[in-house]
Amino acid sequence: MSRRNAFYAQSGGVTAVINATAAGVIEAAREHDDQIGTVYAGRDGIIGALTEDLIDTSQESNEAIAALKHTPGGAFGSCRYKLKSLKENQAEYERLIEVFKAHNIGYFFYNGGGDSADTCLKVSQLSETMGYPIQAIHVPKTVDNDLPITDTCPGFGSVAKYIAVSTLEASLDVMSMARTSTKVFVLEVMGRHAGWIAAAGGLAGKTEEEPPHVILFPEIAFDKEKFLAKVDHAVKEYGYCTVVVSEGTRDAEGNFIADAGSTDAFGHKQLGGVGPEIANMVKAELGHKYHWAVADYLQRSARHLASATDLNQAVAVGRAAVEMALAGKNSVMPAIKRLSDEPYQWEIDEAPLADVANVEKKMPREFISEDGFGITEAGRRYLEPLIQGEAYPPYGEDGLPKYVKLRNASVPRKLPEFKLK
Amino acid sequence: MSRRNAFYAQSGGVTAVINATAAGVIEAAREHDDQIGTVYAGRDGIIGALTEDLIDTSQESNEAIAALKHTPGGAFGSCRYKLKSLKENQAEYERLIEVFKAHNIGYFFYNGGGDSADTCLKVSQLSETMGYPIQAIHVPKTVDNDLPITDTCPGFGSVAKYIAVSTLEASLDVMSMARTSTKVFVLEVMGRHAGWIAAAGGLAGKTEEEPPHVILFPEIAFDKEKFLAKVDHAVKEYGYCTVVVSEGTRDAEGNFIADAGSTDAFGHKQLGGVGPEIANMVKAELGHKYHWAVADYLQRSARHLASATDLNQAVAVGRAAVEMALAGKNSVMPAIKRLSDEPYQWEIDEAPLADVANVEKKMPREFISEDGFGITEAGRRYLEPLIQGEAYPPYGEDGLPKYVKLRNASVPRKLPEFKLK
Repeated sequence: MSRRNAFYAQSGGVTAVINATAAGVIEAAREHDDQIGTVYAGRDGIIGALTEDLIDTSQESNEAIAALKHTPGGAFGSCRYKLKSLKENQAEYERLIEVFKAHNIGYFFYNGGGDSADTCLKVSQLSETMGYPIQAIHVPKTVDNDLPITDTCPGFGSVAKYIAVSTLEASLDVMSMARTSTKVFVLEVMGRHAGWIAAAGGLAGKTEEEPPHVILFPEIAFDKEKFLAKVDHAVKEYGYCTVVVSEGTRDAEGNFIADAGSTDAFGHKQLGGVGPEIANMVKAELGHKYHWAVADYLQRSARHLASATDLNQAVAVGRAAVEMALAGKNSVMPAIKRLSDEPYQWEIDEAPLADVANVEKKMPREFISEDGFGITEAGRRYLEPLIQGEAYPPYGEDGLPKYVKLRNASVPRKLPEFKLK
Repeated sequence: MSRRNAFYAQSGGVTAVINATAAGVIEAAREHDDQIGTVYAGRDGIIGALTEDLIDTSQESNEAIAALKHTPGGAFGSCRYKLKSLKENQAEYERLIEVFKAHNIGYFFYNGGGDSADTCLKVSQLSETMGYPIQAIHVPKTVDNDLPITDTCPGFGSVAKYIAVSTLEASLDVMSMARTSTKVFVLEVMGRHAGWIAAAGGLAGKTEEEPPHVILFPEIAFDKEKFLAKVDHAVKEYGYCTVVVSEGTRDAEGNFIADAGSTDAFGHKQLGGVGPEIANMVKAELGHKYHWAVADYLQRSARHLASATDLNQAVAVGRAAVEMALAGKNSVMPAIKRLSDEPYQWEIDEAPLADVANVEKKMPREFISEDGFGITEAGRRYLEPLIQGEAYPPYGEDGLPKYVKLRNASVPRKLPEFKLK
């Protein structure tokens, strides 16, 4: 097989460990430089491919690439940009092929979630549909943990750890002040459609008495009366109440409790504000003093508190993607296969991309307690291994983590400009 | 000197390291058990003294007390309760003396901020005003960093580290997505009257280009036009803008921005704080896509990211308080005295309580940049040492920090009930 170059891009919301996956891809490619030439990264994701805005990762030292493993954010830039179908926008696919051809790109590594899997699937079909030989491998990443087949999605374990630890810590604060101060604390977490992150908050406590006392999931229709009764019970019984609420919590009619009204490029509603909404409801109906926090990007960028398990998996899927490519695979995704819960053992498996794209994995009902406000032992058994282990970044003398900033040198353009629609 | 017991109480908002101070007090007292008998802790702060609700800390093992150094929250409970003046509520002081007498308490260690210093000062005067021999030592603690004389207040350094690291991490996230997604990120932080915590966000970046691009301080009147121009400049120049806003930000008339009670672009009543308020303003006036986070209690309970400097100082003031008591002192506070910036060197000094109580230390104007939106080199020189060093808690196999839960055994009551007013 002749030596061809690779393209790697980050897609969608970034995570604390997406750069660790990038490191896995680039390091594995460097180990196989007899078969893979340069790894070009797309600046700002797939937009970098369309606009021929490529980053030459060969100009980064081995040390800089290794440092990606402890650096959050998206080192090459990411984007929210969904390719239309071949029929709807053939020009974009033709352009991709031109860019691939111009830079001898034969491997396409796309690091993202469900929408990105769909894009990657379309690219993987280019050999068939447009006669360009490309191997497209999707590399899983999403804090939402909503990809099918894989046991978990790299990025999720670290958010889960952050939310579990933050729920525990803030609850210790509230508990110690509850007699004369805040009695109800509400923590709003991410999770547009699936309650995985909210469920992770449930790891903070192991008994009824321990926080969080209430979790609100997108999977369970919000019932105001039942919710208020549960909060009031906790305040009366334990002196305080911690609530973890998913941004995607909806009422019985399917309306988001808080809806910021705008939409992003994928047509998703931009959410935010269910935390204060719920807190105000508690105050208005029960009269308890409250505080609320909205973790927002803090949760998905918190590399300082990454899960070692998550980090290891993030690197592993990156390396596995390269190995699959070298084994001649196309249209697949490295998936994590759980072998045992305790101790947590896993290996990398191969998932057909067609089975991954546009499928959303929600929380199974058996992970949610009967009353809908907590997690079950089955849920805990699933979640707990994912937050195991600490993997701290190095710190400088200034007290800050030493996050790497890459050179991100541009590859000279060979083609005319291409206007994004 | 006859052996007398000690009383220790936590007061006001708790911190990531207030329990480390408790450990310092209790461990030092145990080392001097020839002079100090039992350390009784007030359950829920001074309320525990008034209601004779005392915790017998001698029932806690040395290991449990040592574990307080890595456990956030207030291990004995804290409260917001300010003693009135002797003239206004003599009954409370008489009750305190009764409780002290009943339990042979000769040392009073009060661990809190400015209001608590005032309470401690009043207690320290009981020998004079009411003839009861007591030595009252105030032990500094407050995330607001607003106590005078001391170089910093234990609790602040850890919040500062959390906010600096979170600002950096969230900014890496925003920066990598800005081309197609969020362009302005707003992080709301604590600090109702003083901008110390907001200033700590400024440690995340060292140049104009690096985040945060805008800091809003309570000390600087909010100027909407100048603010929006600064945000727009950052978005145009660097592609995105990170804003750190203090909850205490006010307009020229002194009104809190958070109290503006406005409605958002969609006519919804705006719930909550200055963070979402500012973010909406950016959207409405500049049209940039935004996200906002409100760290709330997460910031002051984040023991997982404590500053080692802060932790060491928290233990040191606790130990010093006991040493001052044994040296016969009354009405004083152990204060941190800075000897040098680089390397940061400090020692414990003695501050007269009368000079501490009811004095609020604001950010000096020379720590704030000329345009009012950032910190100066002088500010950085002051702040940076306070976040130096990491001091992680131990973690269990469940992936969570091993925070200690004390037995908190009650001391049998000897007196009739006392009703709080």
